Amino acid sequence: MRGAVLHAPGDVRVEDRPDPRIEQPTDAVIRLVAACVCGSDLWPYRGIEAVDGPSPMGHEYVGVVEEVGSDVRTVQPGQFVVGSFFASDNTCEICRAGYQTHCVNRQPGAPTGAQAQFARIPLADGTLVATPGMPDDDLVPGLLAASDVLGTGWFAAVAAEAGPGKTVAVVGDGAVGLLGVLAARQLGAERIVVFSRHEDRQRLAREFGATDVITSRGDEGVAEVKELTGGLGAHSVVEAVGTQESMLQAIRATRAGGHVGYVGVSHDVSLPGEQLFFSGVHLHGGPAPVRRFLPELIDLIWTRAIDPGRVFDLSLPLEEAPEAYRAMDERRAVKALLRP
Amino acid sequence: MRGAVLHAPGDVRVEDRPDPRIEQPTDAVIRLVAACVCGSDLWPYRGIEAVDGPSPMGHEYVGVVEEVGSDVRTVQPGQFVVGSFFASDNTCEICRAGYQTHCVNRQPGAPTGAQAQFARIPLADGTLVATPGMPDDDLVPGLLAASDVLGTGWFAAVAAEAGPGKTVAVVGDGAVGLLGVLAARQLGAERIVVFSRHEDRQRLAREFGATDVITSRGDEGVAEVKELTGGLGAHSVVEAVGTQESMLQAIRATRAGGHVGYVGVSHDVSLPGEQLFFSGVHLHGGPAPVRRFLPELIDLIWTRAIDPGRVFDLSLPLEEAPEAYRAMDERRAVKALLRP
Repeated sequence: MRGAVLHAPGDVRVEDRPDPRIEQPTDAVIRLVAACVCGSDLWPYRGIEAVDGPSPMGHEYVGVVEEVGSDVRTVQPGQFVVGSFFASDNTCEICRAGYQTHCVNRQPGAPTGAQAQFARIPLADGTLVATPGMPDDDLVPGLLAASDVLGTGWFAAVAAEAGPGKTVAVVGDGAVGLLGVLAARQLGAERIVVFSRHEDRQRLAREFGATDVITSRGDEGVAEVKELTGGLGAHSVVEAVGTQESMLQAIRATRAGGHVGYVGVSHDVSLPGEQLFFSGVHLHGGPAPVRRFLPELIDLIWTRAIDPGRVFDLSLPLEEAPEAYRAMDERRAVKALLRP
Repeated sequence: MRGAVLHAPGDVRVEDRPDPRIEQPTDAVIRLVAACVCGSDLWPYRGIEAVDGPSPMGHEYVGVVEEVGSDVRTVQPGQFVVGSFFASDNTCEICRAGYQTHCVNRQPGAPTGAQAQFARIPLADGTLVATPGMPDDDLVPGLLAASDVLGTGWFAAVAAEAGPGKTVAVVGDGAVGLLGVLAARQLGAERIVVFSRHEDRQRLAREFGATDVITSRGDEGVAEVKELTGGLGAHSVVEAVGTQESMLQAIRATRAGGHVGYVGVSHDVSLPGEQLFFSGVHLHGGPAPVRRFLPELIDLIWTRAIDPGRVFDLSLPLEEAPEAYRAMDERRAVKALLRP
């Protein structure tokens, strides 16, 4: 089969790779209908994370089940499925508490190599959720978004306790931040403030439900949030970047007793204890347990209550994956969809 | 009047100080019935925090109202009152959300100098709570504890979401940690694990409700908590020390999706973002909004449902404050009560 492989920073190639097959009785093999490039794929692409030899890329996916192992019970060949980027058994105590990304049997980064024609999904029963039927073509991008960026933005908004009567601020106008806006709107937030300097992203944020846009960053941006909130700061802040600056901006923009939901993968972040202590905020985040939210998100997409697929502003055949990476790296695209 | 003043590290003196008087119409002046030495008083006493000239000491207090300003409505001369160590108006949006230590009109460290015969309490209506009557003498230590250490341990247990069915671990066997144990028990925790190497503190912890004692620290201590919890870690961890080691121990001892409530005042703490991110815990804490809990705590003490006054293992006349500091510094006492 064909699949995208990162050989070195900036060097993604689509090449022949071995067909995945059932290795464990709990596996499934799916034929990918759509995959995409994640913001986190850009870390190794940009050389910020080390590349350890040729790496098959991609962990967001929707597809049709080709084959299942002998222990698989809840999905079957022919079904259209959405998965999450950590394989989980969905039965352990941690999964039952809603933290499938920390499942005692989790397989992080599984599947490896979903930017491909086929993928092996471990722990299929706990990882995949079947849709009610074969989706219309226009629903595919939304379902694909559910697999990571929507699930992650949703978790951030839930972790930030976005809800009725609340002012929610969103740090980061990438796909996750934008879908954090959509999530905050769905969760009933009264006011949604997005930090963004890009007109196209501001527009999409407003379509997803943002009521205010702030173009300043850092202390200035924080001051503007406070101005909008009677000097107090937002009740809820979604952090979807993962840098020292964005984390501190998120904490400072939150009122005492408020909640920060952070999902940007931390790179060289070190939180000063005293500042955190005297901020009085709640802090929660980490790798999003997308699996917790999948049934609800699939339902919202299926009934066309939300259209998260709009974050994909570039759609290319799998063979053009290198161009998808370049477009995201150069910020010409918010999020690129690949069709195998 | 007489009051304790810190002149330099290790140099506390009880000396003549001006009688406090009403300065604002929202003030009250109280005659102290009991005061005490706080763990946080030891930071400047030990020279870890700078001492900026002679400093009147003490911020935990119970007493009888002597005089109130013209705007004070809820307390009156002759009433026995318990206060909190941050003066707050208790009417602003932040106070109403339960974060009185972050009140928009807060006065941190007010009163200054409660290790004295009298103290001025700003924002008396929002800061003081009157007891149902004059307390029996044996209730005074408990009511004094409510003013800081109990309120702080209670907040930590609430922030850690201690409750029925939960395993709670407590890092720190000082007065706050021990009262965190008592709080966790009252909140219905199923199992309460305390980290302690001191036999007398272990004994008090068990009397307050601890079910297990761990004498190891750091990674070894974490491993023991995991062993007690099927490899998962505690649901709730109270952090009552405030060092880098104790914060990391608390985070690592908590299961993914669990809650850390931290109330140790952070000194040179810097939290590694990546470790926090992948821990998946909730983190909440800071200076405890004791005022939120005072009515409930006073009721529990008044009805003798709890006896937090047992953390005081040394009681001295105010004039012997220097010995109280020495005893706590040298760990000969958990907590010293002073009678003016």
